[in-house]
Amino acid sequence: MLSVVSRRFVSNSRTLGKAATSRKREEEKKDAASPQKSFYYDDLEVIRAKGTQLHQKPTDYNNLAFGHVFSDHFVNVDWTVDDGWTKPKIEPLRELSIHPGAKVLHYAAELFEGLKAYRGVDGRIRMFRPDMNMERMRRTAARASLPDFDAEELIKIMVEMLRVDKEWVPNSDTASYYIRPTLIGTDPTLGVATSLAAKLFVIGGPVGPYYATGFKPVSLLADSRFVRAFPGGVGAYKMGCNYAPTIAINKNAAREHGCQQIMWLYGGDEEVTEVGTMNIFVLWKNEQGDLELVTPPLDLGLILPGVTRQSLLDLSREWNEVKVTEKSFTMGEVRKALKEGRLCQMFGAGTAAVVSPVGEIVHHHNGKFERLKIPTMDYKPNYMQKLYDAITDIHYGRAVKEGWTVEVD
Amino acid sequence: MLSVVSRRFVSNSRTLGKAATSRKREEEKKDAASPQKSFYYDDLEVIRAKGTQLHQKPTDYNNLAFGHVFSDHFVNVDWTVDDGWTKPKIEPLRELSIHPGAKVLHYAAELFEGLKAYRGVDGRIRMFRPDMNMERMRRTAARASLPDFDAEELIKIMVEMLRVDKEWVPNSDTASYYIRPTLIGTDPTLGVATSLAAKLFVIGGPVGPYYATGFKPVSLLADSRFVRAFPGGVGAYKMGCNYAPTIAINKNAAREHGCQQIMWLYGGDEEVTEVGTMNIFVLWKNEQGDLELVTPPLDLGLILPGVTRQSLLDLSREWNEVKVTEKSFTMGEVRKALKEGRLCQMFGAGTAAVVSPVGEIVHHHNGKFERLKIPTMDYKPNYMQKLYDAITDIHYGRAVKEGWTVEVD
Repeated sequence: MLSVVSRRFVSNSRTLGKAATSRKREEEKKDAASPQKSFYYDDLEVIRAKGTQLHQKPTDYNNLAFGHVFSDHFVNVDWTVDDGWTKPKIEPLRELSIHPGAKVLHYAAELFEGLKAYRGVDGRIRMFRPDMNMERMRRTAARASLPDFDAEELIKIMVEMLRVDKEWVPNSDTASYYIRPTLIGTDPTLGVATSLAAKLFVIGGPVGPYYATGFKPVSLLADSRFVRAFPGGVGAYKMGCNYAPTIAINKNAAREHGCQQIMWLYGGDEEVTEVGTMNIFVLWKNEQGDLELVTPPLDLGLILPGVTRQSLLDLSREWNEVKVTEKSFTMGEVRKALKEGRLCQMFGAGTAAVVSPVGEIVHHHNGKFERLKIPTMDYKPNYMQKLYDAITDIHYGRAVKEGWTVEVD
Repeated sequence: MLSVVSRRFVSNSRTLGKAATSRKREEEKKDAASPQKSFYYDDLEVIRAKGTQLHQKPTDYNNLAFGHVFSDHFVNVDWTVDDGWTKPKIEPLRELSIHPGAKVLHYAAELFEGLKAYRGVDGRIRMFRPDMNMERMRRTAARASLPDFDAEELIKIMVEMLRVDKEWVPNSDTASYYIRPTLIGTDPTLGVATSLAAKLFVIGGPVGPYYATGFKPVSLLADSRFVRAFPGGVGAYKMGCNYAPTIAINKNAAREHGCQQIMWLYGGDEEVTEVGTMNIFVLWKNEQGDLELVTPPLDLGLILPGVTRQSLLDLSREWNEVKVTEKSFTMGEVRKALKEGRLCQMFGAGTAAVVSPVGEIVHHHNGKFERLKIPTMDYKPNYMQKLYDAITDIHYGRAVKEGWTVEVD
């Protein structure tokens, strides 16, 4: 059924240390009896889509819904406890064949990453900090009892996928190409236990601009009766299990309160932890009168260590215009700052939107729902906009930040 | 590839109200424009396995690992938001074709049930309280933002599956046939949102006796740094997301402490909530000197409402030999009762094992691991054994409990 064109790609990536990696692979090969610890770019087989496997590319990138259109190829590699990883493939996108007893379908043995590639104003395609996504993916795999792999090898394979599907990367300085590496437990046995088989795949596709017509501030439901993550849980890992419980809550927030997202609170003092699937930042004048950018800390395990979160912190510390603090803050502090006119901006931070301004919080407080207006869009100078511009300038090659981008040559 | 034999089965189930259900379906049919609210037994198509689709049955049921062997057929039915449910099928077991962007693989849009059928001493096959599993499955579906269905229709379809695969139900009064209804979100779009497509399937297979050579008391790790569920979460629902985080913890408990399971604690006062994937019971002489059977309550949303849990409570209340209480209890209370010689028995309760005696707790306490011996196996009279015997007598048709079994005629 498949028209197979198999060929070994010669790496021409200058930045990713091919020589070193080949050595890693050669060293592992000597010990041929043990399972393969990673898959390797040098083993990559590319099977190109043909005929009906090739899909129509969108003509209008401005109106593309997130995650609805996938490009022609995907990365596919399997693992078993006995043999380790198979050779990776880039092949025409197709449905996966999964046993109905596979652990991913019963016990949520699954995790994912989300990152983007951008076509710059110079025509070159860049991935943004994929090393951070890959390190988080490996940490998540360990927590999910799924197999480890070499991060650099997967980056090189994703670069190759972008080469193969380069015409799917929008020629636009607002749209982008979203990449979704995924790791699932495929062991077809019931019983809550480590999956002895797994599949890693990477799908991707073009996504439209988040803000085609300027920033759209969101309204958030803040109701401490719904909890996203808790100490002793897995809120700091990008496991699928963190998302399923949020779907019904989000639907109800939209239906009952007209809110686009949830502001996730934790504990009796209503610590603000995340917003929707993003990290959260507040810019306020603190009680000492300093302009301060605050985001919750990672140490309690409640917060996903976002790549955009880290990048906004990095830039802000470099600029040194405002005090930058990683610490917990509560809804009580937000309300107090708002009342005293000290709250300047509040925004989510994530790969999809970069920043997402908060315009309103619907706070379940003393048994009632109170609507709090947040002045994010009115505050001047617009610090959130400055962060957004700096990040997107790097995305689209208008600015260079050493080590933050991987170019697809 | 498939050899298809399609035929409409005529219902011959006397106990499940066929007339009423047909009426339900007929009423729904009048409104043909709206999506189909449930699938119906009357629409069931059975495609029988042939040739290589037929698998070898195990010859020795005593050494069957749980969930490793599946019978020849499975139930398969699909749903979309526009059309509702398709007609259900029983077809030869096969791998499922799932889009790599399906929500089940990314956001754990999935839930399951676990129940059993037993071949009684009279040769008849019985399911144990499937109505309770189906009601829990529907509650879980609502929480998981997955589609609803008619519980009685799925019971009738599972009964039909047991008829088709009846030779897979062990002729044994210790082994059984495990049934795994599963519901997954198949909508192939990224984005954390309600799945607009879903698949419900039921797989099953023979499982060996849990106690081929008598009860095996387990050793539990009790360490409040690992948390299974929390208020505001989904611990009361059988969603896949509750299981993934436990796998690595269980593996470490086995490796580092030789424990078979985790005793899940919650909060600063270390409330005992569950054990492994089972509910937990303690039998103690309370501080007032009464013999009391205690299990944690359902009202905080931390506890899965187990069918075996409810059945043990029902029987115990009926017998009225011991005080029966649903209330929270803490590790401090367990330690105190143990120290004062008041702790009699402690056991897990679930479908897989019915009861699972606790022999030891490895308690992480004041920074150290303390091994607490639990006298479950030594206490006389053995109340846990009495419960086990009563439940298994019903399973295997040695005793009758009105409304607790559904016979496969």
